[in-house]
This record gives sequence, C-alpha cells and structure tokens, in this order.
Amino acid sequence: MIIVIKKDATQAEVDHVVEKIKSLGLAVHISKGKERTIIGAIGDESALASTPLEIMPGVEKVMPILKPYKVVSKEFRSEATVIDVEGRKIGGAEVQVIAGPCSVETKELLLDCARKVKKSGARILRGGAYKPRTSPYSFQGLGEEGLKYLAYVKRETGLPIVSELMDPRDTELFCEYVDVIQIGARNMQNFRLLTEVGRVKKPILLKRGLAATIKEFLMSTEYIASQGNTDIILCERGIRTFETSTRNTLDLSAVPVLKAETHLPVFVDPSHATGKWDLVAPLSRAAVAVGADGLMIEVHSDPENALCDGEQSLKPDKFDSLMKDLRAIAAAIGRTL
Amino acid sequence: MIIVIKKDATQAEVDHVVEKIKSLGLAVHISKGKERTIIGAIGDESALASTPLEIMPGVEKVMPILKPYKVVSKEFRSEATVIDVEGRKIGGAEVQVIAGPCSVETKELLLDCARKVKKSGARILRGGAYKPRTSPYSFQGLGEEGLKYLAYVKRETGLPIVSELMDPRDTELFCEYVDVIQIGARNMQNFRLLTEVGRVKKPILLKRGLAATIKEFLMSTEYIASQGNTDIILCERGIRTFETSTRNTLDLSAVPVLKAETHLPVFVDPSHATGKWDLVAPLSRAAVAVGADGLMIEVHSDPENALCDGEQSLKPDKFDSLMKDLRAIAAAIGRTL
Amino acid sequence: MIIVIKKDATQAEVDHVVEKIKSLGLAVHISKGKERTIIGAIGDESALASTPLEIMPGVEKVMPILKPYKVVSKEFRSEATVIDVEGRKIGGAEVQVIAGPCSVETKELLLDCARKVKKSGARILRGGAYKPRTSPYSFQGLGEEGLKYLAYVKRETGLPIVSELMDPRDTELFCEYVDVIQIGARNMQNFRLLTEVGRVKKPILLKRGLAATIKEFLMSTEYIASQGNTDIILCERGIRTFETSTRNTLDLSAVPVLKAETHLPVFVDPSHATGKWDLVAPLSRAAVAVGADGLMIEVHSDPENALCDGEQSLKPDKFDSLMKDLRAIAAAIGRTL
Amino acid sequence: MIIVIKKDATQAEVDHVVEKIKSLGLAVHISKGKERTIIGAIGDESALASTPLEIMPGVEKVMPILKPYKVVSKEFRSEATVIDVEGRKIGGAEVQVIAGPCSVETKELLLDCARKVKKSGARILRGGAYKPRTSPYSFQGLGEEGLKYLAYVKRETGLPIVSELMDPRDTELFCEYVDVIQIGARNMQNFRLLTEVGRVKKPILLKRGLAATIKEFLMSTEYIASQGNTDIILCERGIRTFETSTRNTLDLSAVPVLKAETHLPVFVDPSHATGKWDLVAPLSRAAVAVGADGLMIEVHSDPENALCDGEQSLKPDKFDSLMKDLRAIAAAIGRTL
Repeated sequence: MIIVIKKDATQAEVDHVVEKIKSLGLAVHISKGKERTIIGAIGDESALASTPLEIMPGVEKVMPILKPYKVVSKEFRSEATVIDVEGRKIGGAEVQVIAGPCSVETKELLLDCARKVKKSGARILRGGAYKPRTSPYSFQGLGEEGLKYLAYVKRETGLPIVSELMDPRDTELFCEYVDVIQIGARNMQNFRLLTEVGRVKKPILLKRGLAATIKEFLMSTEYIASQGNTDIILCERGIRTFETSTRNTLDLSAVPVLKAETHLPVFVDPSHATGKWDLVAPLSRAAVAVGADGLMIEVHSDPENALCDGEQSLKPDKFDSLMKDLRAIAAAIGRTL
Repeated sequence: MIIVIKKDATQAEVDHVVEKIKSLGLAVHISKGKERTIIGAIGDESALASTPLEIMPGVEKVMPILKPYKVVSKEFRSEATVIDVEGRKIGGAEVQVIAGPCSVETKELLLDCARKVKKSGARILRGGAYKPRTSPYSFQGLGEEGLKYLAYVKRETGLPIVSELMDPRDTELFCEYVDVIQIGARNMQNFRLLTEVGRVKKPILLKRGLAATIKEFLMSTEYIASQGNTDIILCERGIRTFETSTRNTLDLSAVPVLKAETHLPVFVDPSHATGKWDLVAPLSRAAVAVGADGLMIEVHSDPENALCDGEQSLKPDKFDSLMKDLRAIAAAIGRTL
Repeated sequence: MIIVIKKDATQAEVDHVVEKIKSLGLAVHISKGKERTIIGAIGDESALASTPLEIMPGVEKVMPILKPYKVVSKEFRSEATVIDVEGRKIGGAEVQVIAGPCSVETKELLLDCARKVKKSGARILRGGAYKPRTSPYSFQGLGEEGLKYLAYVKRETGLPIVSELMDPRDTELFCEYVDVIQIGARNMQNFRLLTEVGRVKKPILLKRGLAATIKEFLMSTEYIASQGNTDIILCERGIRTFETSTRNTLDLSAVPVLKAETHLPVFVDPSHATGKWDLVAPLSRAAVAVGADGLMIEVHSDPENALCDGEQSLKPDKFDSLMKDLRAIAAAIGRTL
Repeated sequence: MIIVIKKDATQAEVDHVVEKIKSLGLAVHISKGKERTIIGAIGDESALASTPLEIMPGVEKVMPILKPYKVVSKEFRSEATVIDVEGRKIGGAEVQVIAGPCSVETKELLLDCARKVKKSGARILRGGAYKPRTSPYSFQGLGEEGLKYLAYVKRETGLPIVSELMDPRDTELFCEYVDVIQIGARNMQNFRLLTEVGRVKKPILLKRGLAATIKEFLMSTEYIASQGNTDIILCERGIRTFETSTRNTLDLSAVPVLKAETHLPVFVDPSHATGKWDLVAPLSRAAVAVGADGLMIEVHSDPENALCDGEQSLKPDKFDSLMKDLRAIAAAIGRTL
C-alpha cells in the first residue's frame, strides 16, 4: 500500500498515519520527494484493506499495490484449470459450445433442440428452469418440472446439463439434476448465493454482472473459490453502456484480460450480450478468434413462439452453419471445436 | 404496440404479422405512410410482451406504447403513498432522515451513534447486520447478533430500525427485529428475494441497482408490489458511469423522474453514491432541494476505526451541522425536516 | 511516480527500469516489500509522463503521484478566481444566472426574452448564433447575423452576452461581439480551438464533454490556461450514461469535486443535461444547493415554435418563479442570487 | 412519427396537436385504443424533427419511425461502397490493414517502420503529424514537417498515407500531402470540420467518438456525405464505459450493426481501443472474424522510446506474426488479406 501525503501536511499528521500502519502490524518505508512525501506500508496489505487511511488528516490518496483476489489468480496457480464435465474438458485446447433454449418449455421441444444442437457439435445443453425476468408478469420458468425435463433429455442424448440457480434454497435440488450450476449476471454479487455454491461439488458457470468491472467479476469468483470450489467457468455476456442498438455491449477485450489474470476458463455468451439473433453469428466468430474457451448460445426450434428471448435465439439450421464457421476459425488459431 | 414494417416487406409478410397479433386476441389498425406501413396492435399489450414480433419477416421494429409497470404507477394511484414507520410519516410534507453506521459493530458504539443522530433530528436508525462486501475476506457483519443489538438500541432510544436483508432464508428473522427491510443495490434484481419481501407486512426500502435504468427500478418495485406489499420506499444511491472521482454517480434527476412516474416515496443515499464523507453534505443539500422525500446517511462516531465504509461516514458533529442546513433548504421549498 | 515491479522480475529488468528513470533526470528510491519491489521516481514527474514505463519488461504497473493539471489547480492558486463580466462578479458569493434562448431566431424574440429574463434576475444573456446540431439537416444558426442581434440586444438591455464558438476561424468575430465565449461539450477536446481561445482576452465558458472525466475536463481547462487566459468558467452539463429517461445524467457531484480541485468558478446547465423543461426547475434548485457558482438556463417565449431545443426551454413565467425558489435556497446556504 | 396521447388528455389538446402536424404539411391518422389514443403523422418526418411535439399539452411521448440518416444508409444505396486508395480497394472482399506509428517522429524511424509493415502486408501507412493530446504539455506532433516526412516515405515505399486533420484551416495542406484524411474520435462532432472535409476529393476515415451512439456516428458520417463526399471509412475505436482495465471498451458488435445500416466500409482500431499492446493481437483477430473491412494498427520499431502511445504499439516482429494469424482468419470466413 502506498500512502501519498498532502503537500501541506504537518509532521504530527504524518506520524499519526505511520503509527496507525504500524499498529496493524506492517512496516513503514518513508520516501520524501520534491513535491510529496510517500509512505510505503510493507507487509500484509489485507490488514489495511478495511482501514480508511484516506480520511486521516494529511493523507492525499491511498494506492493498493497488490490485487485483491488470490485463489483465482494466475499468481496463485500458473497452469490453466481444466474442468471435466462428464468427460468434456473445459479450459483446454478444445473450444466447447453450450447450446439450447433460453427456457425449458416442453419435454418435446427440449429433446428436439438437444438432438439438433448435439448433431451440430454442441457438447453441453443449456435450458432455464427458473428464469430471472425483469417483469413479474412474464413467464417465470417451469421450476422443478423444468429440471426434470432437462434430466430426461440428458438421459436420452447424453448431453450434460447447465441451468441457472437463483435461490440458495434450491441448491440441493440443482445438485441432483444438473451438471453445471449457472449463476446469472443479476446475481453476480448475490454473495450468499456465491458462498452457497462455493460449497458444492459441481462446476459453476458465473456470468459477469451488467455493471461489474473485471476486478469485481474476479472478486465474485473468489467468493466461490474461497469456499473450496475452484471449478468455475467465467462467462462474459455484455456490459451496460450508453449504446442502445444492442441490448448490452459485448466486452470481448475482457477475454484476454481475464485469461491473463486467472487460470480459470473463460466463456462468452453472444446471445444475451446482443439480444438479436442476427448478431450472434459474427460475435460468436469473434469470441473464438479472441481466445474464448467456449461459447454459450441460445438455440430454439421455433423462436417466434418461444416463451422467452425468442428475438435472440438461433434456429437449428443457422446454428449448424455457424458451428462450421467456428470450427474453421478455431483451426486458424490452433484450437479445435 | 406499434409495429413498423420494412419498406420492402411483402404483403404475405404483413399478413403473417397481422394474423399473429389477432391470434393473441388483439385488434389491428393498419396505417400506410409514404415510407412505411405501420401496424397498431390494439388491446392488452402485455399479451404481446413476450412475443418476439421483431424477428418476424418484414418487421423493422416494434415500439411499446404503454409502460410495463402498473401497481406502482401514478396512473394506477394518483395520490402519494404515505408510509407509516412507527409514527414517522414517509412520503408526506416532512423530509425524513435515516442515519447510523454502515455496519453494527458493538452495542455501545451503536447506542452512542443512535443517541447522537436522534438528537440531531434523524428519525430512523440504520445499521447493517449482514453486509454485502465485494471481497470474501472483508468483515461480513455480525449477523443475528447485530439484529439483536439493533433491537436493543431501538428499545433504548425509540428509533425504528432499518437493516439490509440479503437472503430469503432470513426473512422471518428480519420481520421479528426490524421496522423497515432494506434490499440493497446488488440485489435489486434478485427476483426471488423481491418476491419474498412482497409477501411480508413490513415497509421495504429498495435501493436502485448500479446499472439499473429507472424503468427497471420500477419493474423491481412492481415485483414487490405485485405480491401485495405496496409499502415501498425507492432509494437512489448512485449509478455506475465512467467517472471515477466519485465511487458512483449520484443521479439526482432520477428523483423528479420517479416522482412523476410513481406514487411511492423516493429517498437518496449520498453516502454510498459518493463514497467520500466530504461530498455527503453538499449532495444531501442537493437531494433535499431536488425534492427527495428523505435521506439515508452513514454516521459513525469513529470513522477511522470503522469496520466498513469509514471513508464515507460523517462524524456526529458534521451530521448535526448538516441537519441544520437541510432544515433551511427544506423550508426554502416549503417542506419540513 | 511509483513503479511496481512484477513478482518474478529479474534483477536485470529492475536495473533497466532504474537506468531509464535516471536517464530522464529523476532520482530513484527502491523499496523491497514481501510481495513486490517498488521503485519511486523522485523529481519532475512530467518528464516520465510520455515514457511508457509500463511496457518495460518486469514492470507490473505504474502509478502517478501528482495531478497532471497545474495552472488551474488549487495547489497553484488557493484563493478563488473571481471573473468580472461587465461588472458581474462570477465565482464570488453571488450565484449568477445566465439565461436566454437556445438559438438566436429573430431580433424581436431575442429582445423580448432578454427583457423578461433580466426582469426575473438573470445577469447575462445566452443565445446561439452558430449551432452544433447532430443532424446536418437541422437549423444551423443565423451565423454572424445572430451575433449582430445579440449585440443589439445587449445595447438595448445592458445584458452581457455569451455565445458558442465552434470554429477557430471565427475567433476574432466573436471577440468583437460577445462578452463570454462558450466552448461547447462536443468541442471540449478540440485542442486547436482551446489553444485559440487561450490567447484571447475574453472569459471562456467551457462545457464538460459528454464522456469527459473530471480530470480530462481540468486538462482541457489547462489547455486554455496554459496559453495565458485564466478567466475560465467550468460548466457541468450532464454526462452520457446508460440511463435514457433523461437526455444526459447531470453529475452534480462534479461541482464539489471541481471546487476542491480548482480555483475557477463552476456553473451548471440543467437544460442540456436533462433535455426536459419540467426537470429544469428541480435540478436548478439542486445545483444551487450543491454549491454551483451559477446556472445557465434556456428560456424561450414560445417553446412550441422554437427552432432548437424547445423541449427543454422554460417559459418566462416558469423561469421567474424558479428564480424566486433559487433565491431562497441561495439564502439558506449563505449566498445571494 | 407516432404521437402517443396521454390517457387524460382533453379533446382540445388532441385537436391542437393535430392542427400543428397538419400545419407542417403532414397528414394525420388517428387510432383510438383501449388505453391510449395514437396519432400517426404521415409525410415528410423531417418537417417534424425540430418541432418539440412532446411539450404540447396532452402529449405523452413521440416516437420517430424513420432513421435520420439518408445518404449513408443502405436504404439509399444497397450495394457496398468500395473506395479506391491509390489502387487499394477498401470495402471489398479484401481486408485491408493500415499500420504505422502513432506519431511521425523522425524521417528515418518512419521509413524503417513503413518498410517493415509493408513487408508484413500492410497496404496503407498511418502516422500523426498533428496530435490531439489530453495534456497541453505533451508532444503535439511535428506539424507540416511531419506531413513532409510522410510524403517522402510514400515516395520511397509506394504506401499511401493516412493522417489526422484537427483544424479546418489545415484542410488544403492535408489535401496536398495525404491520401486519406482521418478525423479523430474527439472531433467526431466537430461539425465545422466535418462540413469542411465533406467538400474535398479525398477519402475520409472517420473515427467513432468515445461517447457516440451508432446513430450519432452515422449522423456525423451524413454531415460529410451531405456535402458531396461519400468516400467515407467508418472506424470503431472503443467507447467509454465504466471498465478501466482497458483504456476504452472495443465495441465489436458495432461492426455488424453498422454493416447492416450503411453501405460504407467499416474498420476497427484495436490499438486505441485497448491502450495495451498485448491486447492488440487478440482483438485484431476478433475484428477480422466479426467482419471488419480493415484494421488500423499502431506499430513502432522502438515503443519504449516512442513519443506517443508507446504502450499500445506493436513491434514489427509481433505485427508480422499477427498478420499471418489474420490471414488465416480471413480465409476461414471467405475473405483475403
């Protein structure tokens, strides 16, 4: 921690800051420049994290030196984490595609969709049983019935299942039915839910919040990991900006930034990011090219009649054609798909 | 709902859209302009809300006419909702100030702080027992013990209590101890939690999410209200923007915009918005001047040693002096405080 | 400047960084902590400003200690700058109101509006002769003819004139006709224009850019001041955020933040910030309460037929009533208006 | 234009709106729904563009139907515009790469860099002679001397030149020396400059402003095109968001959105968007994959000693290796490079 002292601070003020730091068990290193005196606090920076040094008289600003996340950082573990989901390796050379409808509607539609996306090369099936909807009057998902349909379709097709958990009270239920537990963007800082899934033995797919910085995204990941569960897939899904021609702004720079900071796999969800089916293909291609470890794409056999997010769902034939393009791009950068 | 048809759409495409709308029970009104044909869908717009008309062939764009919130809208109820919290009227001519420490630390500190803010004119005490912290390694609050301290201080001072609920599993516990249940910014779209507090008999203070539009804020309010609980206080607490000199950007325009849309009271939290104690006074003054029904301000007797948010907490004497200024501004606009 | 060295950097890398800093004439102070080595560069930080130390091998990050603005900073001059505009003091105890139509339309309308706003207490007249319009097909202003009307109305009413300069080629013309030269938000980083007006002998009103941080805003002010002209009025007019219920988000926190950083006066333009006339009054009240030195408000006798920005213009009677409220709020915080 | 009437509007208010629309030469179409009356204004919508119908009594909101840009829209010209820059086709099947240093420093460095980027496959040379710098104390470019160096290097290498114009007074000078005139992000709404370059016979490369919506970006393009010059290359270069781990947030979704709206070519500048050299390669790959017609990349032989933007410049060998990757990705999507 670096503490910059105001130009006109008194010696007593400097002494007071120095004592405060020492009282927390850190050593102090003082450097007097022409314009400013600077205090370096040497030792366990976390001891200072919740001490508001910046309000002490004479302090101009405080600058942390170390990153606040640990277990999920590359400094902690340098080799990439590869997560095994029923035999599918996530985070390795192979780019993995998760596909399926926004929400589970009927057993038949789900099975039909699963068979089609599997044929095109998707390795994991997505489907929402509990849906976070902006309006209380919108379709809220089938609940446990939806989870049962997902389990049924898994038995029929062999595709492992990912579905979103919204409530800590449903955690056990999800552990029974799904292979990967998704935490949605709106719950990225639902810390009780993060703590809960940090204690289960299932991989977690954590979506970036709409207004979450990359640092906050990693801190939420740390919440899960600090409980013991380090099988976490990060998923960029668009951030909120002033631009309204897309639902959100897909931040593809986040992929290489995250890959440099953490050993965990990074996915991209172009469907929720753009909110428009015709933008899903170009941004999926870009996501593979930028280095994402996988994609999460909404596919629906009949988008016009979808109960949720029809406007951003690909039809199976479009998805099939996209998968061919993605394979070519993966090959161009030395990966498979 | 207005559906704008593409310039080069075929008659068959137009017919298909018209049929779709009619099949949902709405009437259709077609208007052919020089440049575009426009279809007006007349009837219950909510029937169309989850139908992705914009992906139908020939459709250029879809524009809703009605607002998606109902129970909380002024159209639904034109007179202002006044909420009674143990005799304090919220939403009337009197501007109410909620004050207290960010988190409950010790019984003594809390009681001391409560007595001081009461003396300065605060009418409700705030204090966090469960704290949403960005880092899993930060102080997470005292939990139920904190709630007990709050209840004790209420008995000693007569000040009603507001505290933040983070987990639906704690709802009953909160109903036992607190007078107003706060839902924090990070949980503004935790729909399960909103649904839960929509069923209790306590007033709810709902904070605006960091990236929530005013429309989404009202939709989250609608989630609570649609369950039966319409005693809701909205609280603007800063939104996330590109500016980094303050923690968030306090959106004071939101106050008159919300007051025009809803009959519910609107508060402002300048402490979390700015993250800096020296900005709390000017922005509190501005909040009263802009028409807020109340303020929520963090006060701590010893900010340097606060376990949480010390940098944004006012000392009791600064708070006392601020309250005098606020009283003068309230008087200038014909209100009391 | 603080340079943080990577955990795994080699001694040779550290030495290379140290030599680089010394070669630029600065002294070096090395501090080895448990987790990181830190290099302090002592001396003229500006010598390092354009040296990309962060790309040198072994460097983790670089943190500047000093602020990049000088002439406009409070450190440079601690007492407030008071600017004299034809006898009106800007930046003193009196809150000043600039009012008038968005654009100059006819001589008669302008004179009528000027007389009315003067009667209500406005001290300076605004009016655009050259208009920055998003569309090339919108009314672009009357040009020099507009400036002549402004000069005429000044003669008739005694009100000094502020008008926006868009092109360095018009600088002389403006010096002839107006009392305060306005640089609009879209030209806040038009550095050639800033340099140009830094050389004239007229006060400059500089509006904050839609996406400008407070630091960038001050740097643009520094551009003007570094040329010799330090009579600069800063004007917050709303920043671009995700919220769409107002045209921009008025950042009132910027007022106390700027007042703490610079000795220059700070104004607020609630008309452009909100884009809606019914929000102008509450946000004007808030601006005075937060500590602004003045306001810039659009007033039009016939908004329905205004050629520009009619939707955000106050009618003269609403303006008159607002001025009364503002006077009461100014009094409540110990200022006059 | 659709005008939605308030639920409680009087017939006189509706009549007044109808008369106003008719007085502007448009026909009126009224549709009464259950909840709202809607007025459709049929005819030349631009006549209504500057009429503030939304402030008329009884009006709830106004929704435009048509897009405000014309000449640059796909509706105006459906086939893609291909621009010829000294034989290089921009906007066709071939992806073009513009490369070179941020600013022109010495003749030798520029020539060296030009030869290297040409060898790697770049087809156009970039180099700033006039530099828009945030600080007045930073290197401002060599001015005309820099343009002369560019012309010299063009003669030596055959590479056409692109350089940024900041001041309308320099337009003629630029026409003499450069092949493509660049308008920078900070001048995207410098309307006088746009008008000026709309009258020259050189292709214009227009960068998107940091806070410009795609609609505003197209409107600025329209400013140029409306003056007669339709040889315009649009360039996405990152927008300003809350995320600080990159300098700006590269909005790659803007590429397919722009390609759907306009017939003009769309480029991407990953150097300015990210501000970090190690992010340039992955985002360049993504830009080609998403469908950009070209890239603009900063390359410097000695970034550590660059006078400007060294932190985001690629060394020639990294650029060479990137070009190989880009060629593979271009091939994967059926283009050449």
